[in-house]
Parts: sequence; structure tokens; C-alpha cells
Amino acid sequence: MQNDMNSGTSLGLIRAQPPLVHCITNYVAMNIAANVLLAVGASPAMVHAPEEAGEFAAIADALTINIGTLSSTWLEGMHAAVTAANASSKPWVLDPVAHHATGFRRQAVAKLLDGRPTVIRGNASEIIALGGGVSLGQGVDSRDSVEQAEEAAVLVARRYDTVVAATGVVDFVTDGHRSVHIAGGSAFMPQVTALGCALTCLVGAFLARNPEDPFAATIGALSTYAVAGEAAAEGADGPGSFSWRFLDALSLLEPTVLDARARIVSL
Amino acid sequence: MQNDMNSGTSLGLIRAQPPLVHCITNYVAMNIAANVLLAVGASPAMVHAPEEAGEFAAIADALTINIGTLSSTWLEGMHAAVTAANASSKPWVLDPVAHHATGFRRQAVAKLLDGRPTVIRGNASEIIALGGGVSLGQGVDSRDSVEQAEEAAVLVARRYDTVVAATGVVDFVTDGHRSVHIAGGSAFMPQVTALGCALTCLVGAFLARNPEDPFAATIGALSTYAVAGEAAAEGADGPGSFSWRFLDALSLLEPTVLDARARIVSL
Amino acid sequence: MQNDMNSGTSLGLIRAQPPLVHCITNYVAMNIAANVLLAVGASPAMVHAPEEAGEFAAIADALTINIGTLSSTWLEGMHAAVTAANASSKPWVLDPVAHHATGFRRQAVAKLLDGRPTVIRGNASEIIALGGGVSLGQGVDSRDSVEQAEEAAVLVARRYDTVVAATGVVDFVTDGHRSVHIAGGSAFMPQVTALGCALTCLVGAFLARNPEDPFAATIGALSTYAVAGEAAAEGADGPGSFSWRFLDALSLLEPTVLDARARIVSL
Repeated sequence: MQNDMNSGTSLGLIRAQPPLVHCITNYVAMNIAANVLLAVGASPAMVHAPEEAGEFAAIADALTINIGTLSSTWLEGMHAAVTAANASSKPWVLDPVAHHATGFRRQAVAKLLDGRPTVIRGNASEIIALGGGVSLGQGVDSRDSVEQAEEAAVLVARRYDTVVAATGVVDFVTDGHRSVHIAGGSAFMPQVTALGCALTCLVGAFLARNPEDPFAATIGALSTYAVAGEAAAEGADGPGSFSWRFLDALSLLEPTVLDARARIVSL
Repeated sequence: MQNDMNSGTSLGLIRAQPPLVHCITNYVAMNIAANVLLAVGASPAMVHAPEEAGEFAAIADALTINIGTLSSTWLEGMHAAVTAANASSKPWVLDPVAHHATGFRRQAVAKLLDGRPTVIRGNASEIIALGGGVSLGQGVDSRDSVEQAEEAAVLVARRYDTVVAATGVVDFVTDGHRSVHIAGGSAFMPQVTALGCALTCLVGAFLARNPEDPFAATIGALSTYAVAGEAAAEGADGPGSFSWRFLDALSLLEPTVLDARARIVSL
Repeated sequence: MQNDMNSGTSLGLIRAQPPLVHCITNYVAMNIAANVLLAVGASPAMVHAPEEAGEFAAIADALTINIGTLSSTWLEGMHAAVTAANASSKPWVLDPVAHHATGFRRQAVAKLLDGRPTVIRGNASEIIALGGGVSLGQGVDSRDSVEQAEEAAVLVARRYDTVVAATGVVDFVTDGHRSVHIAGGSAFMPQVTALGCALTCLVGAFLARNPEDPFAATIGALSTYAVAGEAAAEGADGPGSFSWRFLDALSLLEPTVLDARARIVSL
């Protein structure tokens, strides 16, 4: 591992000093995203109106933007928040949900990318499409494998000078130069809606406590998910019983256990 | 049973080739509706903005419209989606939540009905009011029995040349000529918010894989709910423990079990 | 206890004749708030559009307003609802989420206070800020203790001639003259998002069935939460397993058990 701060240390810092994570996310994800952040120890806040999104982003420790249930007013709020985050040097994460599905989304994401996100997190189809490739995805679920998205992820990371995470069965994280695989999680995870969106918010929490190293912060958030997901799957019979066990697992995860169980392979 | 394709076959097709179900539903329902669709094996997408709802409806395999937390902008998106669904011959479902409560809702539903929904699903109070009768319902919960809504359901089905499902303790489905009762489910179901709204989205999934026979598709979705609801109630102590067991039960339901346990009575 | 109707009697009345509670709440809270109301036996309805919020408030038995994910259109709907509730003498509850965080929120709350809420419920940071004090809170989570908010609560109750509830480890309820502490609940409760927002809606349900005594109604709702929260915590390992047990506990709570276990201390 090349990163300076390990994942467990970051998790400990989140618990010791809960970061205020400003999430502009979709209606489907809001509740589970807030619960994921609370379970880990962070303090979520969902604030989207153009009248206040900028003011709030300046107060928060990190910002996350997810275009899942996009509308033009929300897009205004997103831009206000991104501008304020950049002006006050706060890290921010972009989750370009189904950006390849419609013209409205493609244009929205193109403009959001001008705001230079610190991290981009998406599924394989979304990352492939960001790189200019043709993905099989039509809606919000990926129909491509992470492996097929790795080349696009590196390309996107270099083009926008950002960290890119393509998440799936095995996650891929790259800053365009260094790359890792993160194994773990559970087959139940894609059966629970918006867990990917909630992960984007968790990346925000890790960035807030490790802003100097977005690559390590992203790895920290994804490892947390992978380890908690494995633990939660043990007693689960389906996505319903997995879902609440996952929140329990996140809240019970010890920093040392995170570091011991994380399966991160540098490439 | 008069329908050509049985419910189990439809469920198997949904799992084998996940339909993309475009849901424009209310804020309360979005998360549970997406989880219901994922549990069954379908791929949900919540897209409502007027700028893209039409484009997305043309990509999706079915559309569902629910007016639960209605606003004028959302209504615009609904109309764009309905127009596109009709233009590309995609089936669509209308859920006229509490349409009798206010003038705004009454007008909205009148206009949506011009878009000729393939299926209408509502509770007894809503179906009675659609038929022009006086219901006891004031809010989103039904205060009438399904039995009292059957005449109205047949009338509405004939008037709009559609399939109508009035759901409750025993569901009633009619295309205006053929009618069935579907028994099952659990008394916990009305204690969990938005399960009816989520069922509307599930009707969309069954329609997507059996578009030729909306009557059978509706029966398939309702039977799936009834059988999974019965299974989930077994270990449940209240609406909280029922809710996640229900998602598990949906994901574990085998097509052959669905057909064996479904209690459908042709009238 | 000075109140005329005890909490158990109110809970029994809610179950016997489910009040229609009109909730204009935030996107994060909507689902859990509706589930809390259903678990207790009330009938929730989420209606926010300016076109119908007033008409609906006049039909409903009580109104609750929460500014969590505020926007200008929603604020219009809130004002229409408040005006109609006042015109038809329906009680209403204000939840001033993070009102001290931005100028937009401060102005919104100032205007909503002109509508003379029957009850104000907030966390300690919010109540301190309402009283004009400087709170440590920045986002939606409190960073102050309820004890520190008691003086402000009394001041606010007197200034606006209302009941104020500051909720936390031990709740404080005052009408500016009488005050109580309510103990109970669980440390898991602040780890589950929007439980405070859902409590605001529950205050609405109790007000609907005890409109003559808002002080007692507020105590009833808070006691219900405290007793059900303690019961739910018994088998819980984390916020995930607490959350569904809490809904079960609310639905299983007997009026006599509520009165027997409630730990209310008059001050």
C-alpha cells in the first residue's frame, strides 16, 4: 500500500470527530445513505436548494453529488455547492448515476466535471461511458463487469486529474497512476437499492478526515464497505435481512478489524 | 385460469432477463419500491424530470406512474413519460393515490387517464372514487373494503378499456369481462407504508415480460405479493420484522412455489 | 402529572380512531415517519404541493411541518398548509431542522413561527438557537445537551405561547410554565436517521386525539418513543437491528404498559 494513512486510522478519526458530510443525493438513496454515515460515525446533512446549498457546502467537511433523480432545480443547487466547496477547498465526490441514459444527464455530468471532483465513484457501465466507451447499461444497474471498466477508469482519472472508483464484485480504484483491487462485500449488495449511492457519501466521510490523500480515503471507504458487507452476509437470507445487518456491521466495525480483513491488492 | 402465461413463468422471465422498470412514484415509496423490484429480479429506475422522463420511458420496458406526493413539475414529467410510453408501445400502470382528496389530484388523474393506462392499481377507496362513487377514504389509506369496490372496478375497466386491480385483504382484478379474487398476504402489509405503491411498480415488471396479457401480468404481480406476504408473516412480530422478511421472501420465491401456493379464484 | 389525559388513553384513542396526520417533512424522513405513524395506529399522508397543501390540511386532523430538505416551493406549500390548519383550528407542529445553519432556513423559520405552531420539537442545538443562543450544532445533529437547552425552551415557549420539546438523552417538555423530563429511549436512536423527524409526526397524531392539551399530547408522543425505544434496544446489536425492532415495539405497545413504564418527572 502506497497511501500514508491506513483505512482503520481514518475510520477511527471519523468516530472521534464526526465529519459533517453534505450529501446532495437522490430520493431513493437519502435514507440509507444517512443511515450508512451515522452507522460509521459521521454526521450526514441533505441540503439541496440553490438558496442555501453553497452556504452549507462551505460549512461542511466534504460534499457528495449524486445525479440519480436529477432535475434542473437540483442541478442548480449542485453547482452552487460545488462552487462553494472548491472556493473553500473542501473535497467533493461525483456519482454520475446513469449519466449515459439521456441527453439531460450527459450534459449535467459534463458540466459537473468542470467543477473538478476530488473523486468519481460509479458502477462499471457508468465509468465505461465516462471514458467514452459503449456500455451495456441502460438504467442505474451495471450490465458490465468492473474488469471491463478498468482501462476507462485510468483514462478518466488522468483526464480529470481525479481518483476514480469503479465498484462491483471486485472494486477498482485508481488515481491514473496507482491502482488497487478491493475484494469482499456480498452478492446481496446489488440487490439492496442505493447501496452504491450511499458508498459515495461514505467516500465523502473518509475524504473529510483524510483530505490530503483522496486515493487512500477512497480505498478506506470501499474497504469499510467490503469488510462490513462480508460480515453482514453471514447471517443473511436475502436482501432484506442483509440490509439491517449491514448497518449493524458498519457500526460494529473496529478500525483494527478493518485493517486486518481488508483485501486490497496493489496493481 | 384464462390467462395464457402463468405467474411462475413470468417470474422466471423477470429473473432471466431483468426488465428495466421506469417508476415515477412518490418520495415515501421510492426506496421500498426499488427494493421490491430488485428482490424479485427486476431493474428499477426512478426518473421524473420533464427534461428526460420521455426519453427514458422509451428506453424502459414498462412505466409506472404514482401520484402520491404530486407536484406540478412532476406531473409534467409524468405526461412526457406517458406520451413516450404510448408512442413506443410500452405498457404503463397508473396508481391514483388519494385522487379523491383534492381538486389538484382529481384533475391530474383525469388527465392521466387520457393517456390510457394498461393497468390501474389502487386501494378500494380509490377505485370506488374512480368509478364516481363516494368512498370513505380521506387520505392514502383505504377505509372501504375491496368487496365494495368490485362493481366500480368493472365499470372503470370497461370505461377506460384497461385492467383494474383493487387490492386489500382479498384482491380483485378485472379487465371488465373476466375477474378474479386473489387471497393471501398478511395483516402486516397495510402497516408497512408504500407496499401498495411498490406493488404498482411490480405490476410494471410483470407487464414488461408479459405485455400481451395485462390481465395475467397483473395477476402474476399480485399473486407474488400474496404468496411472499404469507411466507414473510410467519416469523414476524410486527411491521418492522415483517418488512425485511418480505423482501427476503420475494427474493427466495421460486416460480413453481408461486404457482403452487397462489390462491386465485376466477369469478 | 398535571395533564388531564394520560398518554395511554391517547394511544388507545389513536388506535380506536386513526387520525389523519398531514406531514410535510423531509425526503430522508418520509418513509420512516409514515412507518412510525402506521405502527402506532395513525394514518399518515405526505402532501406538499402549494396547489393542494391547504385543501388537504383542512381535511386532516393535525399538521406537521419539518424543514429538513427545504426548498422555496415546499415553503410555499408549508405556508398554505399552516394557514388552512389555523383557519380550521387544527393543531400543528413545527420541526425547525438545522434552522441556524443558513440564512434561507433562518428566514423560513421566522416566517413559519408567525403561523403560531401548537408545538415546536427540536434537538438541543435547534432549541438553543431558537432562543437566540449560540449552539454548537452545524448540521442536523445536535452537539449540545438537552440540559443546556432548557432555559431556551422555556423562553421560546413563552415568547410564542406554545409547547416546546427539546429531545435527547432525557427529553425536556415545557409550555413555559409547567415542565417535565422524560427518560428512556436508547443510545441507538440518534444512530438511526430521521427518528427525531418521525417523532414530530407522532406528536401530530397525539395532538389530533388530545387537541385540548398540547402539553399532555407532546408528553404522550415522547413517552411512547421512550418506552418503545427501551423495549427495542433489548435485542438490538446496532442501529440496523434497532430500527425494525423499534417499529415492532411501537405496534406492540399497550396503553397500560405505556403508562406503567413511562418515566415522566414534573419539574
